[in-house]
Amino acid sequence: MSVIPVRHAECVTEQQTPVRITRTRLADGRALTYYDDREPYASGAATRVLHDARELSPGQVRPMMRLDVLTGEWVIFAPHRMQRTYLPATGRCPLCPSRDGAATEIPAEDYDVVVFDNRFPSLRPQLDLTGPVSALVDGDPLWPQQPATGRCELVCFTSEHGCSFAGLTPSRAATVIKAWADRTAALSRVDGVRQVFCFENRGVEMGVTLHHPHGQIYAFPFVPPRTERLLARAAAHRDSTGCDLLSDVLAAELRAERRVVHRGAAWTAYVPAAARWPVEVHLVPHRVVPDFAALNSAERCELATLYPALLRRVDAFFADQGDPGPVPYVAGWHQAPIGPDRDLARLHLQLFSVRRAAGKLKYLAGSESGVGVWLNDTTPERIAHRLRELR
Amino acid sequence: MSVIPVRHAECVTEQQTPVRITRTRLADGRALTYYDDREPYASGAATRVLHDARELSPGQVRPMMRLDVLTGEWVIFAPHRMQRTYLPATGRCPLCPSRDGAATEIPAEDYDVVVFDNRFPSLRPQLDLTGPVSALVDGDPLWPQQPATGRCELVCFTSEHGCSFAGLTPSRAATVIKAWADRTAALSRVDGVRQVFCFENRGVEMGVTLHHPHGQIYAFPFVPPRTERLLARAAAHRDSTGCDLLSDVLAAELRAERRVVHRGAAWTAYVPAAARWPVEVHLVPHRVVPDFAALNSAERCELATLYPALLRRVDAFFADQGDPGPVPYVAGWHQAPIGPDRDLARLHLQLFSVRRAAGKLKYLAGSESGVGVWLNDTTPERIAHRLRELR
Repeated sequence: MSVIPVRHAECVTEQQTPVRITRTRLADGRALTYYDDREPYASGAATRVLHDARELSPGQVRPMMRLDVLTGEWVIFAPHRMQRTYLPATGRCPLCPSRDGAATEIPAEDYDVVVFDNRFPSLRPQLDLTGPVSALVDGDPLWPQQPATGRCELVCFTSEHGCSFAGLTPSRAATVIKAWADRTAALSRVDGVRQVFCFENRGVEMGVTLHHPHGQIYAFPFVPPRTERLLARAAAHRDSTGCDLLSDVLAAELRAERRVVHRGAAWTAYVPAAARWPVEVHLVPHRVVPDFAALNSAERCELATLYPALLRRVDAFFADQGDPGPVPYVAGWHQAPIGPDRDLARLHLQLFSVRRAAGKLKYLAGSESGVGVWLNDTTPERIAHRLRELR
Repeated sequence: MSVIPVRHAECVTEQQTPVRITRTRLADGRALTYYDDREPYASGAATRVLHDARELSPGQVRPMMRLDVLTGEWVIFAPHRMQRTYLPATGRCPLCPSRDGAATEIPAEDYDVVVFDNRFPSLRPQLDLTGPVSALVDGDPLWPQQPATGRCELVCFTSEHGCSFAGLTPSRAATVIKAWADRTAALSRVDGVRQVFCFENRGVEMGVTLHHPHGQIYAFPFVPPRTERLLARAAAHRDSTGCDLLSDVLAAELRAERRVVHRGAAWTAYVPAAARWPVEVHLVPHRVVPDFAALNSAERCELATLYPALLRRVDAFFADQGDPGPVPYVAGWHQAPIGPDRDLARLHLQLFSVRRAAGKLKYLAGSESGVGVWLNDTTPERIAHRLRELR
């Protein structure tokens, strides 16, 4: 089994390098938070919170959500997003620091990690707009609708436009983890939020419209469909065995051993036995914790080293086929829902790619998008074999 | 409301033009069925079933399926499909007729409509291969697995490589509908088949690897996840109201009227009130029928005219943005499952595109693929408005 040694010299704990958190507002009222992790504090915000001098008026858009009567799932409608920024030239990146007179979304000349409200959100706080919203589409009880409340935040992992999460130092990765934990705790306290989902879409093949290394945080006002199914499965498993489903899966993967990619002191990475993507790996803490906020220092420290290392393996996945990477991926951090059934779920990463071979993608067509049946042109054991040899 | 007049002169019934069905086998034993709809019968198979002279050995691959313990959904593994034919040059199209000494999948110099077993199937009949298959991955009860039994068939809509379903004459479209009905009836009788799904993926943006106009038929050995959810919703609706869910949805759309794209004598097309794709339209017969096989002549006749017309509207969707089409799409024909709960479902088409604007696609990234929450950058009413004006 491949084990990435945790180099303790690089292990940054919160005590060693306190992250300084500075909260401010953008010109249109959106919240922005700096997470500064080194001296001199990069954002400069300690002495002077830089002012966003742009002329931006507060967004008056009201994303809506409607219940799909055929599936019982909420679908979010945000037509204003059709106008969102689309693959800007490098010099016009809205996620780079504001430099040389060019104002971006971040009103600082440098930063370490920064989190702010998305300018084109799919979910947003309830607005005091004129006119009530009907609770039913066309007055029909088959079609409930309501404002899509919640939050959509962006997380910039670094001010370096050409970097990636895989290229972050453990120290910087620890700052991102700190930001995820801080935002998860804050958003979990927001009235009506049922799940906080931290994720990164990487690559134009995943629809990424801004190349600057960044992720997103969605605070949903409902429990998303995948989580609903996981909760139902976990409840049935607890009823029949008295045990925790994800703990039993982790124990079974460690027993079977052949799909384990990395076994650390506090975390294990494995390819799930029924992986549905051509590249897929899950990463779970050994201790049952609901979310990032509940991780202890040792767990955050180990994660700060092993997660970028895992991403580097994914980037190199097709190198033997002449594809130097980077590989497009979705990294989804599933956290326990807020409220009922919180004890049935736990923090875990589902990391997957739509690349199935050098130059070829897996598409979600009739079988997957039409009826929800995933077809995988490889096997979980082959995926694990490849990830294991990429140490 | 836009109504496509059904021109009765074009209305081809089975009495008027009997479709001649000829069944044969390819060199490796796969079944192939010709549906000839005109004199002289194009495939020539009436007098002489043409022999597939290629040297093909029967496939010994055994696709497997494993239960995803986190969702309770079967995932299909078919690693042999990694070698499938990928975007061949036009002269090498395996779905064109065999001409000028070049043997293709269809051993005839011409054909009208032909259906045959996929050479690279994700589902196939149980094979008498050496060695039993363990019912559990690594012997663990968390991970059931079994051979992925069932059928994967290809349906060639026409021998014309450069055509599309939208370009078919009503007569030819009626032959495809006849083939769908014939294969649905036959596959529904196959032991273990729980749902027959006729669909078309169109466009490289949907992962289509062969451009020749064709669709697919999957006979699943389980009820697919989307159908499972639909059945659960329909059962709950029947329990609470005593009524049929899809009938009530159709009635509600007709009452609301603003999302109805076409109201015919036997079929209505509407954009669902919670459409999850940037272009989406459903097409349902007014009479409650479980599948294609149960459609009567009048219903098939009307469908043969209006379905290609609906596809032409989808193709023209972004023409006002300078995108001349064709538009990539998935056309999924949902049919009632075989066995329990068959009476809770009914035939309906879900037609959708991932194109969200000229030159831009909707991607399934963190929100959709990670947690199952669909975001739509338009509204159902805007989609319907556009489809209605494209008469």
